Amino acid sequence: MQFEVVDVPIPEGTNVIIGQAHFIKTVEDLYEALVNSVPGIKFGLAFNEASGKRLVRHEGNDEELRKLAIDVAKRIGAGHVFVIYIRNAYPINVLHAIGRVPEVVRLFAATANPLKVIVAEVEPERRGVVGVVDGHSPLGVEGEADREERKAFLRKIGYKL
Amino acid sequence: MQFEVVDVPIPEGTNVIIGQAHFIKTVEDLYEALVNSVPGIKFGLAFNEASGKRLVRHEGNDEELRKLAIDVAKRIGAGHVFVIYIRNAYPINVLHAIGRVPEVVRLFAATANPLKVIVAEVEPERRGVVGVVDGHSPLGVEGEADREERKAFLRKIGYKL
Amino acid sequence: MQFEVVDVPIPEGTNVIIGQAHFIKTVEDLYEALVNSVPGIKFGLAFNEASGKRLVRHEGNDEELRKLAIDVAKRIGAGHVFVIYIRNAYPINVLHAIGRVPEVVRLFAATANPLKVIVAEVEPERRGVVGVVDGHSPLGVEGEADREERKAFLRKIGYKL
Amino acid sequence: MQFEVVDVPIPEGTNVIIGQAHFIKTVEDLYEALVNSVPGIKFGLAFNEASGKRLVRHEGNDEELRKLAIDVAKRIGAGHVFVIYIRNAYPINVLHAIGRVPEVVRLFAATANPLKVIVAEVEPERRGVVGVVDGHSPLGVEGEADREERKAFLRKIGYKL
Amino acid sequence: MQFEVVDVPIPEGTNVIIGQAHFIKTVEDLYEALVNSVPGIKFGLAFNEASGKRLVRHEGNDEELRKLAIDVAKRIGAGHVFVIYIRNAYPINVLHAIGRVPEVVRLFAATANPLKVIVAEVEPERRGVVGVVDGHSPLGVEGEADREERKAFLRKIGYKL
Amino acid sequence: MQFEVVDVPIPEGTNVIIGQAHFIKTVEDLYEALVNSVPGIKFGLAFNEASGKRLVRHEGNDEELRKLAIDVAKRIGAGHVFVIYIRNAYPINVLHAIGRVPEVVRLFAATANPLKVIVAEVEPERRGVVGVVDGHSPLGVEGEADREERKAFLRKIGYKL
Repeated sequence: MQFEVVDVPIPEGTNVIIGQAHFIKTVEDLYEALVNSVPGIKFGLAFNEASGKRLVRHEGNDEELRKLAIDVAKRIGAGHVFVIYIRNAYPINVLHAIGRVPEVVRLFAATANPLKVIVAEVEPERRGVVGVVDGHSPLGVEGEADREERKAFLRKIGYKL
Repeated sequence: MQFEVVDVPIPEGTNVIIGQAHFIKTVEDLYEALVNSVPGIKFGLAFNEASGKRLVRHEGNDEELRKLAIDVAKRIGAGHVFVIYIRNAYPINVLHAIGRVPEVVRLFAATANPLKVIVAEVEPERRGVVGVVDGHSPLGVEGEADREERKAFLRKIGYKL
Repeated sequence: MQFEVVDVPIPEGTNVIIGQAHFIKTVEDLYEALVNSVPGIKFGLAFNEASGKRLVRHEGNDEELRKLAIDVAKRIGAGHVFVIYIRNAYPINVLHAIGRVPEVVRLFAATANPLKVIVAEVEPERRGVVGVVDGHSPLGVEGEADREERKAFLRKIGYKL
Repeated sequence: MQFEVVDVPIPEGTNVIIGQAHFIKTVEDLYEALVNSVPGIKFGLAFNEASGKRLVRHEGNDEELRKLAIDVAKRIGAGHVFVIYIRNAYPINVLHAIGRVPEVVRLFAATANPLKVIVAEVEPERRGVVGVVDGHSPLGVEGEADREERKAFLRKIGYKL
Repeated sequence: MQFEVVDVPIPEGTNVIIGQAHFIKTVEDLYEALVNSVPGIKFGLAFNEASGKRLVRHEGNDEELRKLAIDVAKRIGAGHVFVIYIRNAYPINVLHAIGRVPEVVRLFAATANPLKVIVAEVEPERRGVVGVVDGHSPLGVEGEADREERKAFLRKIGYKL
Repeated sequence: MQFEVVDVPIPEGTNVIIGQAHFIKTVEDLYEALVNSVPGIKFGLAFNEASGKRLVRHEGNDEELRKLAIDVAKRIGAGHVFVIYIRNAYPINVLHAIGRVPEVVRLFAATANPLKVIVAEVEPERRGVVGVVDGHSPLGVEGEADREERKAFLRKIGYKL
């Protein structure tokens, strides 16, 4: 078994969501989940069909994001994995809708940080995601002033009252 | 730490679902979730009790599937992992019901493809699932004709209008 | 890439829940999810901010549990991971509420068993959780007497009728 | 304001589900929710479009059930109400999937009992559902022997262990 | 058609939840949902079976609350309605767990306020809930000082940070 | 008992959502659910506190919508009812997030149609919602050409593929 680390580019203004599902209908259902969630969302998504024709299936309403999703899905190369890039929306707007898609098994990451996906290859063409590296390790522990700043920030941008 | 790759057999007509939960009640709750979901579903399920008597706990209404689930759970050998085999039903019929079981922590796979589970053993009798290999890697990228075929297929089998 | 196994202490009477989210608001939302779930719950939680100031963010209403959560989150050292210790409550009381928090991506473990977290470090300060070791491997398969005992136990403690 | 009581026929082997949604896409989304839930389910559904063309919109895979749904929706005559008849499946198999449809606002009934829908008409062509009469009033209170019989019945038909 | 207003007593320290479900298994599933939610919860619940023996089915772990639930369910007298009294817990602790019970169709009320249930009787022994009166009408509109007090109150009792 | 029909104005570009909850924290939790759902959403919301000070509690980020919500909540005058006006977003974007708010008991309507709320007053200051009139009654039954038009419309506006 070998491990490979796949880099996931995050263009300015985008977020990426990576997960695992289990049926070719996933592509169409994820498309619907995304357009149902946020008016004006832009996105591209790709899904690794794991049997039959074994194609990277894809949908979206933004060609740049669709190409990115296809490229990342292909480089991960693990069956039944999907990759979604979104713009004009954030993961908190769409994660629950994605979770309600009946084919979705689990999520690996939702982030705008530098992301790496750790993939295990157990034999040629047999790969699985084993983890993600989402951003960087912490440098220290929040103190009282940091906490006040955190709370004030969330209130300033309107997420909390 | 050593890695082991566990093969999961998928008899014709069955699907397997593998996940992680955290309490002995899981067995009974998963049983109920499955019978609530699809009339006539056949299934067997097994759960690795991780403390106390440390038995592979199991339930089901089909002895062949129950034996398969027990065997796979035992070979995975990681605490709190469960294995479910279903027949006369598909994962999309039952995944949400499984997710509503209060003990369920996460799912690793739901598939009818050739499946391998990657297990890490950090010391004797201390094991954890780190990933799954669900089917095979993609061979190419869907083109326009493939896309039309995909959409037509889902409509032919009645999943979409 | 190197693997590290992080030990998670479980003081008597506590349970630990470990997962992954994606936004600094997670800390406040997890706090609310926990206080909404069980009157009198005691808890501490920590979240590894993965960009910007990169601090271990934390909240809670019990200082011992808060310190434990901070310490475990720091030792795991993977971006966007959170650690929750609870007392006077069980994971089945809070898992669904945690899952409804809009930032939560996935859960890795919920347990009172001896727990180890397997972490991959792909470069310095770039780490990801790849699995957990939750308790110990099974020693055997449940027999009919074990099954009766299991069912009777759940009824004796009032979880089933 | 006048009240009208609408009778809902329940042919042998069917169940009816009545609810309220809010967008023409409801019809297609309910169709998908039902086919996703139970292999072999037979159903007909109708939805009262409340503005624009104001048609009873409908889908299904069983013409008898589709006609029944249209007829009941028309007689209820309240905007945004939907009616679903199912066969080869039970409400517990589909209620959660219906609840995940993004347009669904609420459910009024799910039953195989004699059903009446109470409708208020506040002016011509302006109607709303105010309640349902689902079966008949209780005749007495369960005693200990009734309770044992209830528990035994659920275990005999396999819903509980 | 006649309307009847049923008074629902709320003893000090209790909350009541009233809803509608559709199968005799409801009683056992609601029991489990409640014990799964809050350690030490005390409750009584009753469900109006709407066909067959037509008994007020009931469960619970507190005899006073069970009797209250039976009495209110009987006086409402509408088929498939359930009544739950809880103590040592609040509706926010249990509402989502009740909503995940596969038989539950809808909720009418969850409150500690003086409660009245409006019931329509369309013919003898055919009744349906049409609404609830939960507490009293507002006396005015919140001003800025009231808003500050509201926010401070929620933070003082620990629900918000 | 008297019935009153309350008119709900729907300014161009807005949708209204009306429901029932049960605790003063509802106001703040609904605020958070809405800002979590759609970037740039504009809204106003009001909630009828049903005991204590009995004020129409309110929040929002658009003063016109907040005033509308307060006015409608006051005229409905039923305890524990809430009214939400949204702009730059649609009910399908927010209904599930509202449903996850732990205080929410049920929804009565989500619509951009002319809306009337039917209120019962059982005694002075004791009121309850019994139904809504959402748009108008259907004028006919969808034919095959209407169906094709419906399907084409949903695909033209991007909701379906």
